[in-house]
Amino acid sequence: MAASDTLKQLLDRDFGAIAKTLQDFISNYVSASGAAGVTVGLSGGLDSSVLVKLCVNALGPSRVFGLVLPSRATPKADVDDAISLAESIGVKHETVDISPIIESFMQVLPDDNDNKKAKGNLTARIRMCAIYHHAFVKKMLVGGTSDKSELYIGYFTKYGDGGADIIPIADLYKTQVRKLGREIGVPSAIIEKKSSPRLWDNHLAEEEIGLEYEVVDPILHYLVDRQAPVQEAAKELALPLASVQRIRSMMDASAHKRAMAKIAFVT
Amino acid sequence: MAASDTLKQLLDRDFGAIAKTLQDFISNYVSASGAAGVTVGLSGGLDSSVLVKLCVNALGPSRVFGLVLPSRATPKADVDDAISLAESIGVKHETVDISPIIESFMQVLPDDNDNKKAKGNLTARIRMCAIYHHAFVKKMLVGGTSDKSELYIGYFTKYGDGGADIIPIADLYKTQVRKLGREIGVPSAIIEKKSSPRLWDNHLAEEEIGLEYEVVDPILHYLVDRQAPVQEAAKELALPLASVQRIRSMMDASAHKRAMAKIAFVT
Repeated sequence: MAASDTLKQLLDRDFGAIAKTLQDFISNYVSASGAAGVTVGLSGGLDSSVLVKLCVNALGPSRVFGLVLPSRATPKADVDDAISLAESIGVKHETVDISPIIESFMQVLPDDNDNKKAKGNLTARIRMCAIYHHAFVKKMLVGGTSDKSELYIGYFTKYGDGGADIIPIADLYKTQVRKLGREIGVPSAIIEKKSSPRLWDNHLAEEEIGLEYEVVDPILHYLVDRQAPVQEAAKELALPLASVQRIRSMMDASAHKRAMAKIAFVT
Repeated sequence: MAASDTLKQLLDRDFGAIAKTLQDFISNYVSASGAAGVTVGLSGGLDSSVLVKLCVNALGPSRVFGLVLPSRATPKADVDDAISLAESIGVKHETVDISPIIESFMQVLPDDNDNKKAKGNLTARIRMCAIYHHAFVKKMLVGGTSDKSELYIGYFTKYGDGGADIIPIADLYKTQVRKLGREIGVPSAIIEKKSSPRLWDNHLAEEEIGLEYEVVDPILHYLVDRQAPVQEAAKELALPLASVQRIRSMMDASAHKRAMAKIAFVT
C-alpha cells in the first residue's frame, strides 16, 4: 500500500471515540492517583494544545494548569497562541521567560561546537524542572506532550519534554494528533502550524528529520505497528529505501530514551 | 529469620565477584553504546563514591568524569571528600556551585509551605541537567547513583538523581553497597558517613525514613525479593507490623517513579 494510502488508513479512525478514550484515561488516572489535576507546559504548538484541551474536557478547566515557558528561541506568535488558547478554554496559566535560567546554567557549563543541541536539551530540561515544581506545589500530575512519531524517532529530550507522569497522546502519530485536534476544536492557526520543538531559532521538525510527517508516520506504522523489516516497508510504501532506513536508524539510536535506565542485576 | 539474621544473609555475598559483574556491565554497556565514558555526579557520599570507583575499575580513569555540584545545603566536608576521592583515583572533575541556578529558578517559581521538598527536588533536577550537559558535550553516558533501597522506597527525585542512562548499583541494597565499597577500597570516612541526600540542611536519610537501613533492607528483601505480604514479613523478621507497613506504603507511593510515564493506548 503506497505511503499516501497508508496515511489515509491511519487517519480513517473515529477521532471522537479516541478523544473519549484519552479523556477517560486522564480522569481515571488523576482520580486513582489522588492528584488535584494536571499541569501542562504550553508551547503554542499542536501537541500541547491538544493535550490541554483533552485535560479540560476530562477534568474541567479548574483542575488544569498551563505553564508557558518561552526562551529567546520562542517566537512571540507561539506565546500568544498558547495564552489565547488557555484563556479561551478557561485554564489558569502563567508565563515565565526561562532565558535567565538558561543563562545561569551556561555561565557554569561548557560550551562546544555542537552547543546548539546541548543548549536545546538543557532548555527542554529546564522546562521539565519548572513544570514539576509547579505540579508539586499544586499537588498535580505532569502531563507529557510527546506524540508517537516523536517518541519513536527520538524527537524529544530524555528527562526533558520526555519527563512526565502521563503521556496521553503517546499512541497517536503526529498526523493523527492533528486530526484529533480538529475534532476537539483546537484553533486552526495551531493545527496548521509547522511542527517545531523551537529549541533554537528557525528550528523546524520536518527539516531536521528530512522527511514530512505524512511520510514519517506511514513508515513508522510499518516499522513499529507491523514490525516490518526496512526492505519490506520501503517496497510496500513505494518509498526510497534510504528514507525508511533513516527512520529505522533514528528509532534504533533513540531506543534508550524509550526505556528505563539500564540496571545491572547481581542476584 | 530475625531482621539481623536476614541482614547477615544479605551481606554474606562475594562482593569481589559482584564488583567484577558490575564493572563488566559498565564496560560492556559503554562499548555497545559507543560512548566515550561515564559522567558521574559526586556528592562525597557512599553511592556516588562506589559508582565512580567501579567506573574507574571498568574503564580506566581517563574515561570517567566527575561533577561535584554543591548547593548551600551541602556541607564543605562532603565537597572535600568528593574532590579527594576523584583526585586519589585520577578522575578529571569539576566543582560547580549550583546555588545561583537554584536562585534563578526560585525567582520565578512559586514558594509554598512544603517548599523544603519542592526545592529539594528542584536541586536534584538541576544536578541532572548539569550532568547531562557535560555528558553530552563529552559524548559520555550518565551514571546514576541510586541503590536498591532508595529505588524501592522512592528515596530519589523522579527525573532528578533518578535520571540517568545506567544505574549500576541499582540491584544492591544500601547495606550491600557499603560492604561493596569496603571491598573496592572506598575510603572509610565515606563508608561510615550517615546516609544523606543533602537536599536541605541536616537532611539525614534514616531520620526522614524513620528506620535504619539495617532494618529497611531486610524488610525490602522480604517485600521485594520474596514478594512476602506485610504480615508475614513482620512475623519472619520479628519486627513491628507498623515498620513493615511503613516501608510497604513508601514502595506503593513511589511505584510510579520506578515505571515509565503512563501511556494511553488507542490501537
